[in-house]
Amino acid sequence: MTALTEDAFLGGRLCVAQPARGYRAGADPVLLAAAVPARPGETVLELGCGTGVASLCLGARVPGLHLTGVERQPAYAALARQNAARNAIALSVVEADLAALPADLRAQSFDHVLANPPYYLRTGGTPAADAGREAALGEETPLALWLDSATRRLAPGGWLTLIQRAERLPALVSALDSRLGNAAILPLAPRAGRPAKLILLRARKGGRGAFRLLPPLVLHAGDRHRSDKDDYAPEVAAVLRQGAALVWPEG
Amino acid sequence: MTALTEDAFLGGRLCVAQPARGYRAGADPVLLAAAVPARPGETVLELGCGTGVASLCLGARVPGLHLTGVERQPAYAALARQNAARNAIALSVVEADLAALPADLRAQSFDHVLANPPYYLRTGGTPAADAGREAALGEETPLALWLDSATRRLAPGGWLTLIQRAERLPALVSALDSRLGNAAILPLAPRAGRPAKLILLRARKGGRGAFRLLPPLVLHAGDRHRSDKDDYAPEVAAVLRQGAALVWPEG
Repeated sequence: MTALTEDAFLGGRLCVAQPARGYRAGADPVLLAAAVPARPGETVLELGCGTGVASLCLGARVPGLHLTGVERQPAYAALARQNAARNAIALSVVEADLAALPADLRAQSFDHVLANPPYYLRTGGTPAADAGREAALGEETPLALWLDSATRRLAPGGWLTLIQRAERLPALVSALDSRLGNAAILPLAPRAGRPAKLILLRARKGGRGAFRLLPPLVLHAGDRHRSDKDDYAPEVAAVLRQGAALVWPEG
Repeated sequence: MTALTEDAFLGGRLCVAQPARGYRAGADPVLLAAAVPARPGETVLELGCGTGVASLCLGARVPGLHLTGVERQPAYAALARQNAARNAIALSVVEADLAALPADLRAQSFDHVLANPPYYLRTGGTPAADAGREAALGEETPLALWLDSATRRLAPGGWLTLIQRAERLPALVSALDSRLGNAAILPLAPRAGRPAKLILLRARKGGRGAFRLLPPLVLHAGDRHRSDKDDYAPEVAAVLRQGAALVWPEG
């Protein structure tokens, strides 16, 4: 692995070591964690936890969670363990492929499963130069396998929360099956009136509610980038800088 | 068929006879027609044209189109022919099931295909009391068959335009296959900040562009219904009352 950097999240409440090159967490895992409707004492599994940013953000927001992360790449799994220790958040990291989880994990079920699956199909475009970044960004495991693995690990009534590029909405919702209900897509648009770049999906195991397409969450104020100053919308800044929960539209 | 009513569309530019009970066109086929990017002289096929409202709205907006409608129910097909004649719009109506189109139609391809497939699954809920309304609203032909039939009839580079309930977005985009590209979903939200109730889909045969989730079109001004007065947003009123094209976000 390349050299590490130390990066602050949630306005400095979290300090996370990540590779200087390779897959580096930005706002996406923070938004993902902010969308998980977890309550104190619940059990949470993150598939593909990388250096642990999403699980640690969630642990920083909601006290008393039982957090487990699965990560296939040994170097990232080791970093996730170190990041959990230095931030004094209990995160159990299992080094495994989500398509072949160890038996003790397969024996467990969780109140919440979250995931930030790779954004790009391996077959398209140029592979990333860094092997770790490539495995984190490039598709090796189809989205349908992520959803199947997540759904199997959910307790009845448990919630799946997932973030993905908006371009892959068709593949994502095609992989929803009858075990999941109350599915909702929250589009994340960079600015008002612009197409969504990212989507958050929430769905409930055993839910009977219909699919809903929610109004977009607009990340940045104003109609275009006007200065070097941070222009996040106030509710998004509260998520990213103060560790607030993301307000999920229920309307 | 029950008694008929005479209804005005596009601010009175169209007058359409429809059953007093049964499937009755409202704003949806008007919005569908307004989203079809047809230019004068092009060929257009509507699958499941009912009494012809969508095709006739399109013909009223774009001159010189070659319009064909397919309708399975004889009484509706007859009404579509009468409605075309009384509005002096050339619409050729073929009485057929879209899953078994006659050979001469299967020999043709079209620059545009549009459709407003049934909104409700036959298996859920109470069937509509009126048989014609039931066949128009209740699912008998799966969405995947609508998309397959539409895609087969499209010329290379031709556009599919379709309107459907937002709840059925998963079934709709799951049915998109590799013959269609540049697919985009335009959510239609009743008011700002509310979930979409309807979605418009556009996709291009042979297109290579990625899927896009567009910003919602908000149908009504204000945050709730405040009076009996029509409160459509200005650009929506222009579509419904003046026969304007729907401005499709390209950003």
